[in-house]
Amino acid sequence: MPGNTFGKLFKTTTFGESHGPAIGAIIDGCPPRIPLNETTIQQMLDKRRPGQSKSSTPRREPDRARILSGTFDGLTTGTPITILIENKDADSSSYSPYADLYRPGHGDITYDKKYGIRDWRGGGRSSARETAARVAAGAVAKALLDTAAIKTTAYTHALGRVTCTDFDPDEIPNNPYCAPAPHAARAMEELVLETKKKGDSLGGIVALVITGMPPGLGDPVFDKLDADLAKAMMSIGAVKGVEIGAGFAAAQMTGSQNNDPITETGFASNNAGGILAGISTGQDIFLRIAVKPIPSVAITQQTIDTQGRPTTISVKGRHDIAAIPRINVVCEAMANLVIADHLLRHRAIADNF
Amino acid sequence: MPGNTFGKLFKTTTFGESHGPAIGAIIDGCPPRIPLNETTIQQMLDKRRPGQSKSSTPRREPDRARILSGTFDGLTTGTPITILIENKDADSSSYSPYADLYRPGHGDITYDKKYGIRDWRGGGRSSARETAARVAAGAVAKALLDTAAIKTTAYTHALGRVTCTDFDPDEIPNNPYCAPAPHAARAMEELVLETKKKGDSLGGIVALVITGMPPGLGDPVFDKLDADLAKAMMSIGAVKGVEIGAGFAAAQMTGSQNNDPITETGFASNNAGGILAGISTGQDIFLRIAVKPIPSVAITQQTIDTQGRPTTISVKGRHDIAAIPRINVVCEAMANLVIADHLLRHRAIADNF
Amino acid sequence: MPGNTFGKLFKTTTFGESHGPAIGAIIDGCPPRIPLNETTIQQMLDKRRPGQSKSSTPRREPDRARILSGTFDGLTTGTPITILIENKDADSSSYSPYADLYRPGHGDITYDKKYGIRDWRGGGRSSARETAARVAAGAVAKALLDTAAIKTTAYTHALGRVTCTDFDPDEIPNNPYCAPAPHAARAMEELVLETKKKGDSLGGIVALVITGMPPGLGDPVFDKLDADLAKAMMSIGAVKGVEIGAGFAAAQMTGSQNNDPITETGFASNNAGGILAGISTGQDIFLRIAVKPIPSVAITQQTIDTQGRPTTISVKGRHDIAAIPRINVVCEAMANLVIADHLLRHRAIADNF
Amino acid sequence: MPGNTFGKLFKTTTFGESHGPAIGAIIDGCPPRIPLNETTIQQMLDKRRPGQSKSSTPRREPDRARILSGTFDGLTTGTPITILIENKDADSSSYSPYADLYRPGHGDITYDKKYGIRDWRGGGRSSARETAARVAAGAVAKALLDTAAIKTTAYTHALGRVTCTDFDPDEIPNNPYCAPAPHAARAMEELVLETKKKGDSLGGIVALVITGMPPGLGDPVFDKLDADLAKAMMSIGAVKGVEIGAGFAAAQMTGSQNNDPITETGFASNNAGGILAGISTGQDIFLRIAVKPIPSVAITQQTIDTQGRPTTISVKGRHDIAAIPRINVVCEAMANLVIADHLLRHRAIADNF
Repeated sequence: MPGNTFGKLFKTTTFGESHGPAIGAIIDGCPPRIPLNETTIQQMLDKRRPGQSKSSTPRREPDRARILSGTFDGLTTGTPITILIENKDADSSSYSPYADLYRPGHGDITYDKKYGIRDWRGGGRSSARETAARVAAGAVAKALLDTAAIKTTAYTHALGRVTCTDFDPDEIPNNPYCAPAPHAARAMEELVLETKKKGDSLGGIVALVITGMPPGLGDPVFDKLDADLAKAMMSIGAVKGVEIGAGFAAAQMTGSQNNDPITETGFASNNAGGILAGISTGQDIFLRIAVKPIPSVAITQQTIDTQGRPTTISVKGRHDIAAIPRINVVCEAMANLVIADHLLRHRAIADNF
Repeated sequence: MPGNTFGKLFKTTTFGESHGPAIGAIIDGCPPRIPLNETTIQQMLDKRRPGQSKSSTPRREPDRARILSGTFDGLTTGTPITILIENKDADSSSYSPYADLYRPGHGDITYDKKYGIRDWRGGGRSSARETAARVAAGAVAKALLDTAAIKTTAYTHALGRVTCTDFDPDEIPNNPYCAPAPHAARAMEELVLETKKKGDSLGGIVALVITGMPPGLGDPVFDKLDADLAKAMMSIGAVKGVEIGAGFAAAQMTGSQNNDPITETGFASNNAGGILAGISTGQDIFLRIAVKPIPSVAITQQTIDTQGRPTTISVKGRHDIAAIPRINVVCEAMANLVIADHLLRHRAIADNF
Repeated sequence: MPGNTFGKLFKTTTFGESHGPAIGAIIDGCPPRIPLNETTIQQMLDKRRPGQSKSSTPRREPDRARILSGTFDGLTTGTPITILIENKDADSSSYSPYADLYRPGHGDITYDKKYGIRDWRGGGRSSARETAARVAAGAVAKALLDTAAIKTTAYTHALGRVTCTDFDPDEIPNNPYCAPAPHAARAMEELVLETKKKGDSLGGIVALVITGMPPGLGDPVFDKLDADLAKAMMSIGAVKGVEIGAGFAAAQMTGSQNNDPITETGFASNNAGGILAGISTGQDIFLRIAVKPIPSVAITQQTIDTQGRPTTISVKGRHDIAAIPRINVVCEAMANLVIADHLLRHRAIADNF
Repeated sequence: MPGNTFGKLFKTTTFGESHGPAIGAIIDGCPPRIPLNETTIQQMLDKRRPGQSKSSTPRREPDRARILSGTFDGLTTGTPITILIENKDADSSSYSPYADLYRPGHGDITYDKKYGIRDWRGGGRSSARETAARVAAGAVAKALLDTAAIKTTAYTHALGRVTCTDFDPDEIPNNPYCAPAPHAARAMEELVLETKKKGDSLGGIVALVITGMPPGLGDPVFDKLDADLAKAMMSIGAVKGVEIGAGFAAAQMTGSQNNDPITETGFASNNAGGILAGISTGQDIFLRIAVKPIPSVAITQQTIDTQGRPTTISVKGRHDIAAIPRINVVCEAMANLVIADHLLRHRAIADNF
């Protein structure tokens, strides 16, 4: 399974199972002399930590990031940066009832089909816990992007049926749902409490904007910037759809409506979402990401055991009600990894003109 | 720009500009002893050829595929398969009025920003003509997948505002719009003629289904099967969104609605779109792909020239009104490349259990 | 610096500095259900541990390998295998006199030129200590190769001017110099003691044989099996030359002398070293690897400081007198990584015929 | 067989069989705005063309290079550069006697064992003709390196038992054996004529020097500059050994002899061959490459047919007597590909300090 590495020049490999000794990431290819320390990384990890909204798991992982290599005197050295996060609050006992059952909507059955073996404790490698390693790696990418004044912000466009069409960037960090308007945050909280009571779960839509983009990033034809962003987002467990700029709405526009007019001072609109022919235009990049509801629900569901015998399941573990808002910082991290990679890829050829 | 290669084990590299001497593809990693000849490839290229529906360009490329290497006596040999398609009907003169203008919605401006130079004839490398090379490569992937009885079918879910919710697979090859119902094809034709008259263009939504899938394909965590499919589709020039299974609709479902119950005889539904945790379940894979309207429109639009001076443009070249339906076979080709790659990737580890 | 990953399907990434908190390796792509535990890995690491011959450093690292991920119930799971080795006996103080000096024959000066920063403690990333991570990864590859009965053995062909032309495989583990004859081991010991007294150091030649090879491994044209083996060996710090089969001696042979006749029962000789046109023949693979003398010597040498001012240096740290014999197991590890990678690469296409 | 691509940022893929319609190369990742035309490439190809010394085949391929993509107005555009070389003088009939025989020293038997099929005409993919595509790609790399004043020169250090220890760089292009002294060229000619008469063939040693090297190129730990050079050379069919700097001689030196003293004005010697810890020092890089004798000899040899039955063979085709001197430009090409790749890899991170 050599699928645990992301990026070509700014390259991240993650490892670890939900209930193993530790998870972590190696970042290879970060340029030297970028300021980086454990506090920088911890800040991003803290944004992913459970327990900040009513939608999240009661599991209490401190998620303490430890840098094992690649920095010296607070600067990156150009060598691989290893970040280790030990698993402290891994309680496998709550998973043992499911050791022989396939949880609907989970990777239990596909891991077994692929590998003929799986670590069933807490979802093993397929656990959302793996995304903590992505966030740690994304923090390193962010440190690089900070030097170029590129900034990524994810927010909650929709939680279940509550969609927020207002947009006030200052509100995003002010509510536990990362909604860009306070009224939306309140409606989301209500929906979460109601859903929790029913033993069910919620999906939603994350929006992501990247500001400060230089033009020229992206490598046509297959490694288009939007193609790599789409892969990055779809590689996050719960994601089922990605659109850029006008996205699916563009399918119903005509060319004269969808084209962004070009003026002396720049583009007059941004239906393209900041990318044309796979290369950044210099405008903000804009994505929307569809997140499916958490599959672990208390409501009883039909399933089979590992012997193929029919049975039912009601998942009682410590689970989030919704991947949102904890997934938002994961989306940011993945976007940062993509942009950092393409920034370096562009630098490799940019000297020549 | 090392972005012209796709796949890890079944690896395709494409090359060529719209108005250069030729375009083509090298496929490296195809297993030996797969039946393959120029006719097989030509059949797929013919599905992409213009002039079959009212929505397509009058450019008349024969798109004759020539195999330059990698086969012997009608079988692949395990060495790189090179397919060359010469450009015959390249009429650069119709592009010369735009040599110093940036066409809105096109990669003209971003290629210039990235490389400081571009081949402006017919869009150069950013031309949709590049997708002919993908189709040729996809035909090789299809030859491999045929040996495993895996089959990919793309059809037109929507053209502009005409959406087709009926589905009769037998109808798809029976109408020039690849719509799965005859009434939809008629409505699409009307919309195309009306749009053409206005000098405008159309987008749409392609649906794609992969049948005969074995379980176990896909390499978590970053190279999930859906992540690679999303990248594959988003790497096609006009694509602005991708969703898998229930896709964006899943965002509004609850967990108990979205989860596919598992029964003795298989899954009871397919909201997952045939992939769980990045690994194929063995069900059909189902994708929807949002395609933006063709940016080249006769309607006058605001733009700048390469010196940055404001001007207007009305693009009169030989253009499609819509990328659909010609893009459908490109989506099939890209899906075939992804599945072929993951089939080989899985075989590499599958002997051991 | 994305150069810390080796292999395409059986993929190893190493990390860590000589005097940082830890070094280690992630192995991604190991097939599932291979027996693996910490003891297996420890056995290989113990072969590299200092203090077994008179030629090695007095540094006393226990080099305790801890598996952080990728196994369950003593079997690999198909997920990334992480092995951590903490640095226990890192005494940076002995290096501080050299913090501002470039040690001749070391990477001090080139790391500074490349990165503008370096971790000078014990050589940082360029330390031979990094090879412990390779040995750990190689032990995982060995576990895979054991299932295919492929076996790699390195031994000491020459230490300084003492060359051993006799070959008794049973003697190799019986003497601390891994020489294939007892009289050679005794001569090597004498030479080591004499060299130590002078404050100087020694090079040598490692020979490596791989038995049990199946035919058909190796991917022409660039990823020939011998090309990948050459890279693997030359990537070990002290290595300055690699030859396969008859090697440099072949340059003086004629074709009729060098060609290995093919008979009904196999090849009649093995000047090819087990590889033809980059693909294994099924014979034993045979390599020779030239190892330069350890650059850290007590004898005073001319150098400059980091400000470019001329000075002299006499390196007094805890160093080996010769990389041999500790490097032998590193050569074995690298060979195992190459063969494991090509075994999986071949399996990916081998089903088809 | 995805082994036909070389390089990570400056990426070359070659294709084609000896007696198929054409061979060629795609170079992806060349920076834009580098002057390049067919004449530049042809000059390098002409150096490889047969018929210039008495040691080469009478096959008369014009080896006309045609650029199919990637340039515009005499400059590279940043898109893939495709170079096509059609096979004109492919006379398969002379190979048909060997269609069912395995030629000793050739890849016939291993290709069959790996793929279960092979194109036996002229060696198919394993033919030395493949190296013409490398030379074409190397010419593109050379065009890039010219902008940085880096220059690669290969010459004949030894042909069979004739070794040339004198070195006059001006003599290299003055004799058909690329020997660095006229007396050596004469001795080589005599040896060639004598060997030809016997129906036998010769090996030799190529020396290669790279001047104008900037310090800092090379990506430790696995992608050391010397490791990538070793792989590059060993990937050339006839090569059996590679050494850098003092090479195998270093194995017999002591540390105080082998270390290159560092002075205010640079290194006082160059046993390192211009690379320390895998990173270029800024000195000239120096390699020696052992080339085996051409396996196709008229002298009768023992072999088997494809059914495994014993027989004899005397190869009468149009063959070189020695790969030298035609292989020299192939070594240059491969070195240029390595240095071009590492130049771009270094630029990607070099902005930051």
